[in-house]
Amino acid sequence: MDVSKLLAGRTAYMRSSEIRELLKWVTADVISFGGGMPDPSTFPTEDIAKITAYVLETYGGKALQYGPTDGVPELKEELAKFAESNGIKASSDNIIVTVGSQEALELLGRLFLDESSVVITENPTYIAALQSWRVYRPRLVGIPMDDHGMRTDVLEEQVKRLRAEGAKIKFIYTVPTAQNPTGVTLPDERRRHLLEVAERYDLLVVEDDPYGYFIFDNTVVTRLKAMDKSGRVIYLSTASKIFSPGLRLGWVIAEPEIIRWFALGKQALNLNTPTLNQYMLAEGLRRGVIQRNIPNIVSLYKRKRDAMLAALETYMPKGVAWTRPSGGMFIWVRVPEKIDTKEMLQDAVTKYKVAYVPGHGFFVDENPPRNTMRLNFTYSSFEQIDEGIRRLANAIKERI
Amino acid sequence: MDVSKLLAGRTAYMRSSEIRELLKWVTADVISFGGGMPDPSTFPTEDIAKITAYVLETYGGKALQYGPTDGVPELKEELAKFAESNGIKASSDNIIVTVGSQEALELLGRLFLDESSVVITENPTYIAALQSWRVYRPRLVGIPMDDHGMRTDVLEEQVKRLRAEGAKIKFIYTVPTAQNPTGVTLPDERRRHLLEVAERYDLLVVEDDPYGYFIFDNTVVTRLKAMDKSGRVIYLSTASKIFSPGLRLGWVIAEPEIIRWFALGKQALNLNTPTLNQYMLAEGLRRGVIQRNIPNIVSLYKRKRDAMLAALETYMPKGVAWTRPSGGMFIWVRVPEKIDTKEMLQDAVTKYKVAYVPGHGFFVDENPPRNTMRLNFTYSSFEQIDEGIRRLANAIKERI
Repeated sequence: MDVSKLLAGRTAYMRSSEIRELLKWVTADVISFGGGMPDPSTFPTEDIAKITAYVLETYGGKALQYGPTDGVPELKEELAKFAESNGIKASSDNIIVTVGSQEALELLGRLFLDESSVVITENPTYIAALQSWRVYRPRLVGIPMDDHGMRTDVLEEQVKRLRAEGAKIKFIYTVPTAQNPTGVTLPDERRRHLLEVAERYDLLVVEDDPYGYFIFDNTVVTRLKAMDKSGRVIYLSTASKIFSPGLRLGWVIAEPEIIRWFALGKQALNLNTPTLNQYMLAEGLRRGVIQRNIPNIVSLYKRKRDAMLAALETYMPKGVAWTRPSGGMFIWVRVPEKIDTKEMLQDAVTKYKVAYVPGHGFFVDENPPRNTMRLNFTYSSFEQIDEGIRRLANAIKERI
Repeated sequence: MDVSKLLAGRTAYMRSSEIRELLKWVTADVISFGGGMPDPSTFPTEDIAKITAYVLETYGGKALQYGPTDGVPELKEELAKFAESNGIKASSDNIIVTVGSQEALELLGRLFLDESSVVITENPTYIAALQSWRVYRPRLVGIPMDDHGMRTDVLEEQVKRLRAEGAKIKFIYTVPTAQNPTGVTLPDERRRHLLEVAERYDLLVVEDDPYGYFIFDNTVVTRLKAMDKSGRVIYLSTASKIFSPGLRLGWVIAEPEIIRWFALGKQALNLNTPTLNQYMLAEGLRRGVIQRNIPNIVSLYKRKRDAMLAALETYMPKGVAWTRPSGGMFIWVRVPEKIDTKEMLQDAVTKYKVAYVPGHGFFVDENPPRNTMRLNFTYSSFEQIDEGIRRLANAIKERI
């Protein structure tokens, strides 16, 4: 039967993630800098095995049963303590556990976005946030960035202009630390400025913080949520990069009223985040497995970043530029304007055996720059990083 | 800050599950027939512990890493075999793994429902399906039931009438076996009739099958998906009742084109179903843990159903009627019309220390019957079943 005639109108706005599509092409002989996968050697597999055995022994039926929509109390308590260690004051009432922070992004759209609602983001910004929200048809307003992240002076002008137009601004979305895709970090001064703007215009701020645990150099920053005096920051984080992405565990920290809305929205999605997985994360935090793991991950990823920066320096032709990320998992590359990285991708994968994510989809613009790409430096081995960048440089050279 | 002014219009259609709300009230001294929780003694906890250790040892980094949106290949293969053992022919291309079947219900709404789209359901029907879909503002058309499930003669008339009106019918939703909330089962003859109607009017059919594994008496029925010749049945099932609900694992079997749409919709929700949990289910099926567990669950639940039927017989006053479910987890009770079960609930819980789900929310009607309730017989112990029904009878007697 012909299903297409039965589809809802919103399906026209569903776009497949280019990253996910890419993963399908990538065969064993391709070195992939696509995706945003952690190095599997950072998963504390043995600890997880011990923890799971303990959780099943100790909580048994409870860990295998349905649980509360907002999360199991034991985990929420541990997350509150963990937040405190990151400068954020929170109690269980401020927390909901989600199926990865992707679910929190979806819930933001579901709870706040009507057609033509305005969302302000860094430009470029996290591609999967845009994909989540597009079905709700918001107007996306991008703020340009420099080496210190979002230009908060431009933010202020834009908010003023949007307000004068009568636009309904729903929230400012930011990945302030080691941003995805650029890797840049917003300094505290700009963070204070961002919050001042939010305060003056009474706006919500969404702080997406998967990478705040991974700062490589001597940068010290304060989480926006830690500076939030009026409950206007909705903070998202995830266990995907510090414990395991396969457990699909994220969490939101916000005012209790906002948490109740998230829980109401989440009921329809999946009733509750897998209970066993929640107990595993609670125990991982309680035992300090995660806290002890973070410095090791930082040390490994710093070396991998340095290896990729060195390889870029060695192999890339003139006219190619890149960011020097202070943390996180990605380097953002700009190639000469005559190259369209989306067009180059198939050749890169099939002929040169190297993959990356074309930058187009990270921009909110209808006609985004076509000469950017995001490179992940955490998943590949050191050898692959060197060889992969060499291959990528060759693919680029062919087109200059 | 005042968040309410920022909420999207659709939040007005989000209703909290009465069942979930109820779970919050229920203190240790209350016997609850609310919820739809399996008896935790049916969870193969020791096997799950062994399986998890094996999966972490064998798949390690893979089980803890991100995975494909449609599900890990090893699980899809096992699910295809399991489907075949239940009469359904399917290959991996026909399957997507979801975060419980709740996620599949949400995706049905997201993919198919525009405002005023028509969904045809049994009346009463599964409350959480209605809750998922309401934000999409469909027109819900309920088909009355008798002791043999949906009245397919009425279905045929209704479809004819709706088509004549020019209504956009998106799908017929049915829980054909041991229906939630009534416990009744649709015989094969009616199943054939339902599919004939779908065929004649070119409609999709959603078969929700969490309870098909739990038929207590000598009823033999064929899954609609097993009778489906033209790929119009979207089949949903779940591991929640045969393995563990805390793992949050469900799956959809449908035509590959439909599966691709489900995967596209699911990307935005959570990228992928927890990878570790998927490997656990794959291994549970491969080892036959689930297949061996089912007969034990059937035997336990049959005895629990019989215990509840006997208690109802013993304690209930005249004027109270109930279904005799051929399987599943629920008995549907009708009390005298002067009693509103929603109004009675607080008294029942706080004074009589017994909980149930008022039937109102299971009906698609704006003004549903007010004198029904759903009782779960799987979670409580035999002692609790007897004592709880005695308490419930007392609460009812006070109001007659």
